[in-house]
Amino acid sequence: MSVVESAPSLRADANVAAELHRLMSDLYPICRSITGNGVRETLHRIQQILPLSIREVPTGTRVFDWTVPREWNVRDAWVKTLDGQRVIDFLESNLHVVSYSIPVRRRAALSELKGHLHTLPEHPTWIPYKTSYYAETWGFCITADRLRTLTDPEYEVCIDSTLEDGHLTYGECYLPGESPEEVLLSCHICHPSLCNDNLSGISVAALLGRWLTSASRRRFSYRLLFVPGTIGSITWLATNQDKLSAIRHGLVLSGLGGPGGLVYKRSRQGVATVDRAAAHVLKHWSGDSDIREFVPYGYDERQYCSPGINLAVGCLSRTPYGEYPEYHTSADDLSFVTPERLEDSYRACQSILDVLEHDVTYESLNPMCEPQLGRRGLYNAMGGAAESRSREIVLLWVLNLSDGCHSLLDIAERSRQPFDSVRSAALALEQRGLLRRVHSGIADDIERLERTRGNS
Amino acid sequence: MSVVESAPSLRADANVAAELHRLMSDLYPICRSITGNGVRETLHRIQQILPLSIREVPTGTRVFDWTVPREWNVRDAWVKTLDGQRVIDFLESNLHVVSYSIPVRRRAALSELKGHLHTLPEHPTWIPYKTSYYAETWGFCITADRLRTLTDPEYEVCIDSTLEDGHLTYGECYLPGESPEEVLLSCHICHPSLCNDNLSGISVAALLGRWLTSASRRRFSYRLLFVPGTIGSITWLATNQDKLSAIRHGLVLSGLGGPGGLVYKRSRQGVATVDRAAAHVLKHWSGDSDIREFVPYGYDERQYCSPGINLAVGCLSRTPYGEYPEYHTSADDLSFVTPERLEDSYRACQSILDVLEHDVTYESLNPMCEPQLGRRGLYNAMGGAAESRSREIVLLWVLNLSDGCHSLLDIAERSRQPFDSVRSAALALEQRGLLRRVHSGIADDIERLERTRGNS
Amino acid sequence: MSVVESAPSLRADANVAAELHRLMSDLYPICRSITGNGVRETLHRIQQILPLSIREVPTGTRVFDWTVPREWNVRDAWVKTLDGQRVIDFLESNLHVVSYSIPVRRRAALSELKGHLHTLPEHPTWIPYKTSYYAETWGFCITADRLRTLTDPEYEVCIDSTLEDGHLTYGECYLPGESPEEVLLSCHICHPSLCNDNLSGISVAALLGRWLTSASRRRFSYRLLFVPGTIGSITWLATNQDKLSAIRHGLVLSGLGGPGGLVYKRSRQGVATVDRAAAHVLKHWSGDSDIREFVPYGYDERQYCSPGINLAVGCLSRTPYGEYPEYHTSADDLSFVTPERLEDSYRACQSILDVLEHDVTYESLNPMCEPQLGRRGLYNAMGGAAESRSREIVLLWVLNLSDGCHSLLDIAERSRQPFDSVRSAALALEQRGLLRRVHSGIADDIERLERTRGNS
Repeated sequence: MSVVESAPSLRADANVAAELHRLMSDLYPICRSITGNGVRETLHRIQQILPLSIREVPTGTRVFDWTVPREWNVRDAWVKTLDGQRVIDFLESNLHVVSYSIPVRRRAALSELKGHLHTLPEHPTWIPYKTSYYAETWGFCITADRLRTLTDPEYEVCIDSTLEDGHLTYGECYLPGESPEEVLLSCHICHPSLCNDNLSGISVAALLGRWLTSASRRRFSYRLLFVPGTIGSITWLATNQDKLSAIRHGLVLSGLGGPGGLVYKRSRQGVATVDRAAAHVLKHWSGDSDIREFVPYGYDERQYCSPGINLAVGCLSRTPYGEYPEYHTSADDLSFVTPERLEDSYRACQSILDVLEHDVTYESLNPMCEPQLGRRGLYNAMGGAAESRSREIVLLWVLNLSDGCHSLLDIAERSRQPFDSVRSAALALEQRGLLRRVHSGIADDIERLERTRGNS
Repeated sequence: MSVVESAPSLRADANVAAELHRLMSDLYPICRSITGNGVRETLHRIQQILPLSIREVPTGTRVFDWTVPREWNVRDAWVKTLDGQRVIDFLESNLHVVSYSIPVRRRAALSELKGHLHTLPEHPTWIPYKTSYYAETWGFCITADRLRTLTDPEYEVCIDSTLEDGHLTYGECYLPGESPEEVLLSCHICHPSLCNDNLSGISVAALLGRWLTSASRRRFSYRLLFVPGTIGSITWLATNQDKLSAIRHGLVLSGLGGPGGLVYKRSRQGVATVDRAAAHVLKHWSGDSDIREFVPYGYDERQYCSPGINLAVGCLSRTPYGEYPEYHTSADDLSFVTPERLEDSYRACQSILDVLEHDVTYESLNPMCEPQLGRRGLYNAMGGAAESRSREIVLLWVLNLSDGCHSLLDIAERSRQPFDSVRSAALALEQRGLLRRVHSGIADDIERLERTRGNS
Repeated sequence: MSVVESAPSLRADANVAAELHRLMSDLYPICRSITGNGVRETLHRIQQILPLSIREVPTGTRVFDWTVPREWNVRDAWVKTLDGQRVIDFLESNLHVVSYSIPVRRRAALSELKGHLHTLPEHPTWIPYKTSYYAETWGFCITADRLRTLTDPEYEVCIDSTLEDGHLTYGECYLPGESPEEVLLSCHICHPSLCNDNLSGISVAALLGRWLTSASRRRFSYRLLFVPGTIGSITWLATNQDKLSAIRHGLVLSGLGGPGGLVYKRSRQGVATVDRAAAHVLKHWSGDSDIREFVPYGYDERQYCSPGINLAVGCLSRTPYGEYPEYHTSADDLSFVTPERLEDSYRACQSILDVLEHDVTYESLNPMCEPQLGRRGLYNAMGGAAESRSREIVLLWVLNLSDGCHSLLDIAERSRQPFDSVRSAALALEQRGLLRRVHSGIADDIERLERTRGNS
């Protein structure tokens, strides 16, 4: 049974650059936080693309060491002069209000108000992004330029928010494949109008999901999670512990539209197949790229790679969070992310998944010396010249290392040839009866999973 | 029983540079191919040096995935003007005829003839070397300058060749040693008048064989193979499968007289003893050298290192094939290889074999603290000065690492001292009763081999 | 049971720089050799600092391959002109007499005398240091400048020494800890008025011993050895073989007051805990430092790391012996070693011992996802800014890797954070009930030791 050929073909989606950016534009105005209607609205938009289930987990639910917090919603927020002029206006930018601010409506002296105002003096035209999930307070974020204009002795202050028992909301899409083993794709959906940090990951994940959905066959099952950062992944992990043993590979997606080359951060395991697949793809990628060691901070890979979970989940981004000045400011807007970079990131994800889908192991049916490639039309009949033979070289690598112990990714790594070339060579050799697959992969996956579950 | 001292002494053959070049000169005019009388004539010349058996394997014999081809012989070949003037003449250079050209004798229009002519436009005075073993055709190789002079509308063409059932011919020399385990030395003998590519390997292998033959004792048995490339090694492997388990180390020899430093290409195993011995020798060699990873193309190491064979066989050369412009052209002639470089390569082979022969393991008979070297005449009696003590340092390394787990090569590698110094120190310490050999080596070899054969 | 907090606190000894240099000054005038009263006098001085036992081993005692030599003492030595003027005078510098010179008292012609004189022509104002332990002879060491002034035809020569059956003397201090497993600290005490080479190690070891003695609790037991080089460590090892299995870590101390950065030479094992602890401390040390591979020459680590002993004993120094011109000359005097560098070396030793004492293993009590650090006061409540979080990062590393398999040193290495920070983070997390120690360490030590002894 051949699963390789049936995998979703890359590049079937020629308009994806524009689509990725359009989806971001649609989601940009929504005021998201770790709970609330902004998250629901975001997930409803994604449901137009993907068969997404929206889950609601009640406030107060214990999730490992954490508790699902109260739900926060904000309708309006402003600071007005005493004659009624809005000098800070939530409707202008949802970054103006500190996320999870408690309701407030009163007059405040400038000196007191200033204690609740956040600015970025080094970037006087940018609004910072601030949250206060676990300390009850309120605040506004404004440009340093705006702060200088606030000179009245007193202002009217209003944050029309609610912080009440409700739910934490997240989205989940499960796409069964031939194997019960899963690839996890996860992105965070808890930031308001910030593009690179959250919307880029959401867009790429949504369109990857659409691409996977469209595949006639999938070797692996796929699970896409659109979750609020930290508390969302913790909630999913705590309430789905029976599913963890099926997760074989995973990627956290974030920061995929900003500047700089692709960056892959390894899983805590460090040499998991997804780590090797991503490193291989990035090594052969056009443009700069970087492979980094695991560190226990960052996005939700922190949770997926906590010591008791320890999944093979890495993180793909471009310039990582905190390493560009626009991070967590109003400058991370729709102009900061480009369709071209979004597509580039999307294609890299496809390529990594493509390696995972097709990383099978062959054995040569002619292991004693080389088989005669010439009479099978795989070799230059007229030898002797010092001419380039790059295609033949890949054929020879695949034949030489197909001893039942080296997977195609192993061969690609040792030969320094791109995975695609190695896979094409293997298919050509298989077609001519020179190789056979050692494992279908699927049967092993099922057996491994049953054994794991039997033990636990 | 001491085997180390009885190994053939290096440098007993002071005239070897001249002898190596003379042997090449003798063999240069012969028109070799993968079969035929040129191979036989070549092997007969080597029989003057070595006790070589000449083997004949009939056309049609199945050897793994291959079949021994028909035998090709050529007596004459030319292109003449219609008034009888030879404008291309096989008797001038045997490179002029494409190897394995089928017989032809007729008149041909210039336009048709040109489809059968091969040149090197970038080197207009060189004749290329071409073969067509497995596609029935004919052709001539000429200089680009000559091609420009062919302006007549028609020519007489003749290739007086035969392509008929016959034999594949190769030479084999087996030199029994104290151990039944073998060192394999292999070179290809299938190229016509090409010096670096084939004659240099043949000459070095032949004189190494003579040196080994002259030894009063050998730890290992040696098998020298003079075989046509690819089909020859495949034929030997297919018809000698019972001998493979005895081959412990091996070297393919080729390209040993051309420019550049020594290059060792590791076996597929990568860290076999022969790989480590060659890397060690080259690291301490005067002049440039390079160690390369295994790749599944090149000379007959492709076959020895195919996945089902997987012998510890590396390849020693100078600048490898295809990396110098003279490769597979008439410029690879007697002036392209020098006696000095041939001797340098020959000496490196001797040194590698010397390491393999003498890589034994000792254990200290005074493992608790250092033994007192001073009263045994091995140490400066008058201490205290900061003077150089390089000889003592090697003694201390050998004593420190002779715990029964480190062979002399292990010690040479860790101490970064040349193998010769390490071995001299070990002999001095053994003589004074401070070390004893853990294994004779030989008994272990025999036992291992019997176990292997019992299993298969 | 917590042992970590009770370890001796670093930096309690603020005057240590001056104390280290003062101890050296006290010991400087004494004429030490591998035996004799100079050694006894030295050990008596150290007894004022440490509870040191002085051991006497009789001449002729067999110690492995060696024999305890006769005891050497010297009262006076000189060369006089015939009119009674001392031109070489032992009372001026004890380097003037070759150590272990046999007694001599007679007139000698200048030509004969010169055969017994040693100088350093390249440093004409320095006296060399020479010994002749195992060859019976006599000699004087003088400056090259002095040699030029010796022009009389004859001189009176006197070495008033004794070379008789007696004892080899060494000092030993054992400080029991909670664990029977030991840390060995060893220095050599056999050089006369040489500061960096022997007195610096003696001073640092003595004051480290005082510091360890003052600790209210020690995880490990400590054994400090003040031994003559080579024969002293061999004597201790030969007469204490039952104690070797308890030695878990060790350091040879020497050359700790001279120029250059700290240098750690690994044990023969190469990756022992002491090797990793020293490499870690030096990597984070201010100033240059260097980690070197084991070589089987140097100080007494040669014996501790001989193949049959093979203890985890490295060597800490500054610029190693033989790499500075003052080595083994009168220029290695009290001005060559500085209090600052002595203290720097002493602090590095403390830090290495501190790592060994506190390298315990924890497991997270919340291994499933991160615990919520915020509500435990360990985390910024107000998130969102891209501000530095280096303390939080260490907390996250400790939580992430505390899976019962990584010790604090493992975590420090992987996170590239200083051990102190890692340990502080672990203590904070333990205090808040987020971590628990997997092993007390001690119980395991006892069990391991009993098993080892049961086997031997």
